[in-house]
Amino acid sequence: MANFELHPRLAQDCHFLGVTQGSQILLMDDARFPWMILVPEIPDALELHELSDAAFAGLTYLVRETSEVLKRITEAEKINVAALGNQVPQLHVHVVARFSSDDAWPQPVWGLDGKRPYEKKTLRQLEGEISKELITA
Amino acid sequence: MANFELHPRLAQDCHFLGVTQGSQILLMDDARFPWMILVPEIPDALELHELSDAAFAGLTYLVRETSEVLKRITEAEKINVAALGNQVPQLHVHVVARFSSDDAWPQPVWGLDGKRPYEKKTLRQLEGEISKELITA
Repeated sequence: MANFELHPRLAQDCHFLGVTQGSQILLMDDARFPWMILVPEIPDALELHELSDAAFAGLTYLVRETSEVLKRITEAEKINVAALGNQVPQLHVHVVARFSSDDAWPQPVWGLDGKRPYEKKTLRQLEGEISKELITA
Repeated sequence: MANFELHPRLAQDCHFLGVTQGSQILLMDDARFPWMILVPEIPDALELHELSDAAFAGLTYLVRETSEVLKRITEAEKINVAALGNQVPQLHVHVVARFSSDDAWPQPVWGLDGKRPYEKKTLRQLEGEISKELITA
């Protein structure tokens, strides 16, 4: 089995926060949307439904926990959850905090131009809040 | 507790195939994408992560089963799974069969104009294949 390596597109677009329950916890570098991405460290995983029973249960549980934490921290109106993978085939799950005032509402966030990188201070604060609640390793 | 009633937008846009493990199984009436929607019959459910432990496990297991069946039947290249709810707040999960030749690829399917209703014969065949594998009630 090959070693796990994060897809270069995810590595480029996101900040790495840590590892929890076997998944890398990433934060998309786009201040328009508090947007987390969970990537199970399983080489060659492509489809959510093709995970083993244990890996599937672990990842969906982590999605639930991440959604709760992100909604509480950001006071989001809605959480969007998705496993797409049309552009980045490596299995990853998006958990996005949405507001009726955000740049994409009510449409989904994918494919929207105009990415706005975080300012350092905002990033550090958000990373700290998420890590405190969610990162175990 | 109020009785469960399917959101009128879902009722209008989709064909009802049946009920499995407490969720309504719907097929979006758009022949461009084999697109199923799962709606747990839980009144006032809004967010995936706010479901009870049992309901969450049941729904995610059904998402997995639906993804497997839809991929097998359609020979899709990719399955897209998402719980959004920005426009229809009632909790529902999309399971969409994707092809690199389809009208939206590699973008997600939401918000794309040009819906194409199924022809009766194609619809009956697809409904039959899905129901055989997935519908228990």
